[in-house]
Amino acid sequence: MRTSNYLLSTLKETPNDAEVVSHQLMLRAGMIRKLASGLYTWLPTGLRVLRKVENIVRQEIDNAGAVETLMPVVQPFELWEETGRSEKMGAELLRFTDRHERPFVLSPTAEEVITSLVRNEVSSYKQLPLNLYQIQTKFRDERRPRFGVMRAREFSMMDAYSFDIDKEGLEKSYEAMHDAYCKAFDRMGLDYRPVLADTGAIGGNGSHEFHVLAESGEDLIAFSSESDYAANIEKAEAVAPTEKLAAPTQEMTLVDTPNAKTIAELVEQFDLAIEKTVKTLFVKASDEIDAPLVGLIIRGDHELNEIKAEKLPEIASPLEMATEEEIRAAIGAGPGSLGPVGLELPFIVDHSVAVMSDFGAGANVDDKHYFGINWGRDVELGKVEDLRNVVEGDPSPCGQGTIQLKRGIEVGHIFQLGKNYSEKMNCGVLGPDGKNTILEMGCYGIGVSRVVASAIEQNNDKYGIIWPDALAPFQVAIVPMNMHKSERVKEAAEKLYAELTAAGIEVLFDDRKERPGVMFSDMELVGIPHTVVIGDRSMDEGNFEYKNRRTGDKTPIAMADIVAHLNTQMV
Amino acid sequence: MRTSNYLLSTLKETPNDAEVVSHQLMLRAGMIRKLASGLYTWLPTGLRVLRKVENIVRQEIDNAGAVETLMPVVQPFELWEETGRSEKMGAELLRFTDRHERPFVLSPTAEEVITSLVRNEVSSYKQLPLNLYQIQTKFRDERRPRFGVMRAREFSMMDAYSFDIDKEGLEKSYEAMHDAYCKAFDRMGLDYRPVLADTGAIGGNGSHEFHVLAESGEDLIAFSSESDYAANIEKAEAVAPTEKLAAPTQEMTLVDTPNAKTIAELVEQFDLAIEKTVKTLFVKASDEIDAPLVGLIIRGDHELNEIKAEKLPEIASPLEMATEEEIRAAIGAGPGSLGPVGLELPFIVDHSVAVMSDFGAGANVDDKHYFGINWGRDVELGKVEDLRNVVEGDPSPCGQGTIQLKRGIEVGHIFQLGKNYSEKMNCGVLGPDGKNTILEMGCYGIGVSRVVASAIEQNNDKYGIIWPDALAPFQVAIVPMNMHKSERVKEAAEKLYAELTAAGIEVLFDDRKERPGVMFSDMELVGIPHTVVIGDRSMDEGNFEYKNRRTGDKTPIAMADIVAHLNTQMV
Repeated sequence: MRTSNYLLSTLKETPNDAEVVSHQLMLRAGMIRKLASGLYTWLPTGLRVLRKVENIVRQEIDNAGAVETLMPVVQPFELWEETGRSEKMGAELLRFTDRHERPFVLSPTAEEVITSLVRNEVSSYKQLPLNLYQIQTKFRDERRPRFGVMRAREFSMMDAYSFDIDKEGLEKSYEAMHDAYCKAFDRMGLDYRPVLADTGAIGGNGSHEFHVLAESGEDLIAFSSESDYAANIEKAEAVAPTEKLAAPTQEMTLVDTPNAKTIAELVEQFDLAIEKTVKTLFVKASDEIDAPLVGLIIRGDHELNEIKAEKLPEIASPLEMATEEEIRAAIGAGPGSLGPVGLELPFIVDHSVAVMSDFGAGANVDDKHYFGINWGRDVELGKVEDLRNVVEGDPSPCGQGTIQLKRGIEVGHIFQLGKNYSEKMNCGVLGPDGKNTILEMGCYGIGVSRVVASAIEQNNDKYGIIWPDALAPFQVAIVPMNMHKSERVKEAAEKLYAELTAAGIEVLFDDRKERPGVMFSDMELVGIPHTVVIGDRSMDEGNFEYKNRRTGDKTPIAMADIVAHLNTQMV
Repeated sequence: MRTSNYLLSTLKETPNDAEVVSHQLMLRAGMIRKLASGLYTWLPTGLRVLRKVENIVRQEIDNAGAVETLMPVVQPFELWEETGRSEKMGAELLRFTDRHERPFVLSPTAEEVITSLVRNEVSSYKQLPLNLYQIQTKFRDERRPRFGVMRAREFSMMDAYSFDIDKEGLEKSYEAMHDAYCKAFDRMGLDYRPVLADTGAIGGNGSHEFHVLAESGEDLIAFSSESDYAANIEKAEAVAPTEKLAAPTQEMTLVDTPNAKTIAELVEQFDLAIEKTVKTLFVKASDEIDAPLVGLIIRGDHELNEIKAEKLPEIASPLEMATEEEIRAAIGAGPGSLGPVGLELPFIVDHSVAVMSDFGAGANVDDKHYFGINWGRDVELGKVEDLRNVVEGDPSPCGQGTIQLKRGIEVGHIFQLGKNYSEKMNCGVLGPDGKNTILEMGCYGIGVSRVVASAIEQNNDKYGIIWPDALAPFQVAIVPMNMHKSERVKEAAEKLYAELTAAGIEVLFDDRKERPGVMFSDMELVGIPHTVVIGDRSMDEGNFEYKNRRTGDKTPIAMADIVAHLNTQMV
């Protein structure tokens, strides 16, 4: 490709409204342009990378035995009512009516469409296993689209759906997709981890997320220091302490704490160890218990894990924090002065809190705390559960090593759905026993456009993007210096361009009438891995200059050897 | 691909709701399934063909120098207001609001988005010419979607937009795209014609449609018997007759015609030559003239060309036929008895009518006609224009040969837009003279999913589809007979499958436990060009059987020679 025929569209300045580095660089490198909130046009450079990701994903998913289809972006609303997802997805599911007032949605995923297809097309277990996928435009009407294509409204996603006659088959299909994801992300040259993920209402252990590790990631991942264990913090179990509850050494005392509304203030003003304090949070109770609210007690330095809490039968789902008004109405005191002693509402205690002695907590009277609380003596312990996020240094739930935390960007998700959709939609086939058998389903997604952004989060420097070879929009840039004045430079550049292109290498030939500095910084910004600089001065010595984007190294290479040298450099 | 891992989904019966053969065969061959009116899921076999078309189009459009982008399916409504197309497109433009009540549309094309992009990204004539395209999902909310993917609501389209500094540049870009279209359709093996098309309100001669010739086509194409001239009948000029108006030979007489409401009845009951009758049609007048309606007079055996009529200044645009009520109110007589003699409304006469003598027409009194009418003597001639569709045998407007008519399916359209959009959207760049210059635009579309259907319209027989090699979902089918009983057949089939696959040939290996007859008819229905039948009987003689889908020929080929033979057969 010649720059003169191309739409390079690089920007010198970082746009104001781009917060994360991938968004900034995708705008600056001319990869995307915003059309409206959460809607982006992929410019030629961006699209070339998007297609690289798509093709790698397609090849590996094909290799895993899945078969490609293409489902409409516009789907009938009725199908979404069949599974109840029309309600569950809320305003993210964009609805509209057509000219005949029939209701439709813009597809965020396709479980309903594919299940409806399979229930019509597949009649016997002999046609299984079957895994159908598509790489198609998706739409989610995010309330706050941000970070460019990282959280856009319209995006490209690979979504696959496996159908098996039994659980064993599902597990096999799931494993095959797990492997295919690893192969795809390996090929892309990304630093990623498959991590255990929460399975929500469906339960079971059959869900992994694939995270690209990056400081800017929205998710926290818990790793074991010693094993392969990795889980989304939402899912990572906080192992119950093995230590015994210590005997009391202090009396319980009621203390005036008018200026301590938070744990931090309490700890500072009264010189307490934060591990000797607890937070008491209130959430709406479920119908199972006869109380409006339930208290959740965690250690002062810990964080509530809402996903874990939401699964408890005492707690309303989806989880809803009580408002200050509701708390005052039920307890007579406000947040900042709440605790277990004298509480007339049911409460649940985190494992870490259950082994605390001589600790401080709110007294359920405004501006007062109890210090020196001990379970049993001062208040009954009650139900103990895992309520908190793990923290660094926690023992790993796998039994080996301790927890370390890193940030990740979720780029893929695989999920053993079981019969969740197939039962609701009556998707069954004749089994080997001649009876109708509801199918076991798996679903699998890769955020194709998000992969592009996450690769940049992981591969950039102050000059711009540093593409892994497999994702680069062009493998090689040719930068001729003063080509419009030097016939020799022009000839050499044209010859090299023709030679590389004929060899199937994707080359960006910068034939603009620009100063060399402008060309260099554009090629660096766009992140082309290998650059050949052609200029009179080096040609005088029989050389071209080879520049490696990642290492920054510049090497003179004999003109005759340049193609061979590039071949040794390209991965 | 092994059939056992695939979703073949062939149907024995022709679905009731499919009218045209391509729709029937796409359903029967398991290429598509209807999700809702005008919305189709592409099953694996259909998608493989769709991708073939896409890839050929992409390669040829790339070769023409265009650069690929990807624009959102969801577009802000405001952009469509800027060009006024929001109104013009009417209910076909599907509108909706997002969760924040902002108005959007589902993109039927992207002139607005691309023009808005180019006005932001391109600032100098030095960056031109520029031709940007995408292959993207489009949506048109057709009132009556039909013929499967031929006239679907959601469909895949290649749309390209060229930007040039002047008309000369535009013409060059247009020629390059014309050539690219020809190369693409040539490669697909289609019988197609580029034909002159109407340019609507924009005018000029810069528009061609590309039609695949097929009996089921919705369009009529006029060809010259002697030259390359081809035009959509909407556009084809009916050359004015060179003959002189003959002198009257009959008196004009008023005749009772109570049972002659149509030309056919009149001709039959009064033994008239149809070429001696005229039809008088009434349409709404424009503001330019002081009358509610205008009469349009064409010969009894001709058809009104509404596109031509609409362009006349006297006629309201869009063209609207007068209702019977309006005609009665203005004339006092109804359709079936209308004519020029004594008419108090303005009328326009077709060229062919202007040279008629001694002809019959309605008398503007119910159930009466005048016979023996002659221009000048009985009624003034008035304005003469080209108002009719050409018919077979007309002289060709190119000056060579006569008109022949064929039916076509429009699969592509190229259009010199000029400054139509760029002026409305203020899309200009600094020209060589340092002044802002509004750009000359062209737009170019190929209905990718429609190409698939039209290829089937042109390539089928009673057994199913006959794919041109370039579009076939698989090039070769391997049909092993009784593989599950004969180890020798199984081994030979597996070996051939491995060998062909390794050579990059797309093979469907029918490894189902089905009777040979079922496998043969499925492979024929799906239309795979080349089949190798492997069976014990032919293997006893050292042969496989090669079957050619198009010719139907079956040839025994020595087992060792089968790959070489396939290579001679594959195009």
